[in-house]
Amino acid sequence: MAHRIGKQTIVFDSKPGILGYYSIAGIKEGEGNFKEYFDCILEDDTNGEKTFEHAERKIFIEAINGAIKKSKLTKNSIDMLLSGDLLNQIISASFAARELDLPYVGLYGACSTMAESLAVGATMIESGAAKNVACATGSHFSSAERQYRFPLELGNQRPPTSQWTVTGSGCTILTNRKCPITIASATFGKVVDYGVNDVNDMGAAMAPAAMSTLIAHFVDTNTNPEDYDLIVTGDLGKLGSEILMDLMEHEGYKLGKNYSDCGQMMFDDSQKSFQGASGAGCSAIVLNSYIIKKMLDGEYKRVLFCATGALLSTLSSQQGDTIPGICHLVEIVKE
Amino acid sequence: MAHRIGKQTIVFDSKPGILGYYSIAGIKEGEGNFKEYFDCILEDDTNGEKTFEHAERKIFIEAINGAIKKSKLTKNSIDMLLSGDLLNQIISASFAARELDLPYVGLYGACSTMAESLAVGATMIESGAAKNVACATGSHFSSAERQYRFPLELGNQRPPTSQWTVTGSGCTILTNRKCPITIASATFGKVVDYGVNDVNDMGAAMAPAAMSTLIAHFVDTNTNPEDYDLIVTGDLGKLGSEILMDLMEHEGYKLGKNYSDCGQMMFDDSQKSFQGASGAGCSAIVLNSYIIKKMLDGEYKRVLFCATGALLSTLSSQQGDTIPGICHLVEIVKE
Repeated sequence: MAHRIGKQTIVFDSKPGILGYYSIAGIKEGEGNFKEYFDCILEDDTNGEKTFEHAERKIFIEAINGAIKKSKLTKNSIDMLLSGDLLNQIISASFAARELDLPYVGLYGACSTMAESLAVGATMIESGAAKNVACATGSHFSSAERQYRFPLELGNQRPPTSQWTVTGSGCTILTNRKCPITIASATFGKVVDYGVNDVNDMGAAMAPAAMSTLIAHFVDTNTNPEDYDLIVTGDLGKLGSEILMDLMEHEGYKLGKNYSDCGQMMFDDSQKSFQGASGAGCSAIVLNSYIIKKMLDGEYKRVLFCATGALLSTLSSQQGDTIPGICHLVEIVKE
Repeated sequence: MAHRIGKQTIVFDSKPGILGYYSIAGIKEGEGNFKEYFDCILEDDTNGEKTFEHAERKIFIEAINGAIKKSKLTKNSIDMLLSGDLLNQIISASFAARELDLPYVGLYGACSTMAESLAVGATMIESGAAKNVACATGSHFSSAERQYRFPLELGNQRPPTSQWTVTGSGCTILTNRKCPITIASATFGKVVDYGVNDVNDMGAAMAPAAMSTLIAHFVDTNTNPEDYDLIVTGDLGKLGSEILMDLMEHEGYKLGKNYSDCGQMMFDDSQKSFQGASGAGCSAIVLNSYIIKKMLDGEYKRVLFCATGALLSTLSSQQGDTIPGICHLVEIVKE
């Protein structure tokens, strides 16, 4: 059984395990700082498909199948797929679910989806509702840009606050079996809005949500930033991470050397991505490669994985709304 | 603890209870067959807002607050909001969550969202992760039409297979307390696609998914249609319900007089809605008014609530994809 502590945090007493994980990355991501950690790097961003949206769908299927295979399971032993993505009506996840023929729970948390799926998935395992679940998300630079901003063909200049949506997909298999790495707790976030309305400054829109969830977690669990080996946010980017550190310091929490951001870490400086990476695939492929591998190696024993999402919509922006953010957090531990 | 039976079904041993429920309906719905059952009927489809999307958001907030009040709870005792809607990036649910300041799990299941949120919510209660959760969804005729089909200002003719998207929102409060009406089990659906590509024939697109989930439930639980007082699908409409009955009969299951469809029942014949109602709000407002009231009155004791969703996207349709469907099911019982 799970139990609730404080206002927002769920402790998983049976500690659902991470049985398998898989990451597939695009060309640019495959030339960045994590190139040695990904399971697969695309040679072609269309992945052999006619549209970027179909390419995105295909990498979802490949990531999920890859994670099932690495878990030494068959598809039949997966009780449920928990997945979502950035495209309208989460078509990448839904059409992938159609191909995979698995019971499917569609989620929408924008770039927070990796943590959202793990938190819901761990609850499914904990309740006895499932023995093995697949948690997956991803994104594609070219499909996201044309949906949220401008068609690439326009050749718009990117402003200095912009981030680069990751092409990639990550999948984690959670299980009720005993595993070296487990989900110890989760904090579901609230929707937080500090009034940012610049669609090219997602880090600023999401940082307040990351602060809200992190502080909720620290208060609920009576811990501090220094109790963790790694605190990693999803895709705040360079500027957004700095905003988060400022906001946290103002609230009396100092994020030190154990704090990083997947978006900030993804690309090296020569890759011209301004504030770094973003997209649901960003935190998904860093978790399902670098972070889990470093945990298995014993380098990190207690990690807060905080995926951040900007609840941006062209429609709400056109109607004068600001951009709310959300951050879901899972605590991952190595026994 | 929950336990899994068969391939897709979860039995909730502790039987999460329905503590409160609330429905808010638009003008046309408020003139239809369920007018006496709704908690609130709008006098103006804009609900005092400047846009239909803002109107939709406002009825979400009103439905959730209404259900919390009817449960005699305060907002502080709600541990989690599980919600989604039809608009891109589920902005109605997300912006409602911003106003309500509750930990929030964003879901996307198109018109299956009411059952999806109840199934995930019941698992949250069952696992111990939450004591009280709010499960909500809704839709608005005018926001849905302009996003999925044509702006109303164009005055397009509606084809005879079309359904009328419901303006309305429903919310159910689930709890770990003992209640007269409980969630006994849930069957999460698979994504099913029989190749329908007509965006004006949603009933045909969703009927195969309803069949898939119903048969999975009957096989998993070793029951038959006649074991239930009411089997109700979400929004297949008249034609879609007939297709479902045909499909089921072909598989050896006869849906008899105890079968109905929320979309088919919503409007009376004088209301010119062709195949009936649809939209995430359709099954949400019928469940959270008529069905729960009839269960409290003892008329129905064992109900299969099967919300159906068409995973339609303008983008996937434009790229030549067909329209997949999904159906999630919850079994609701009166002790």
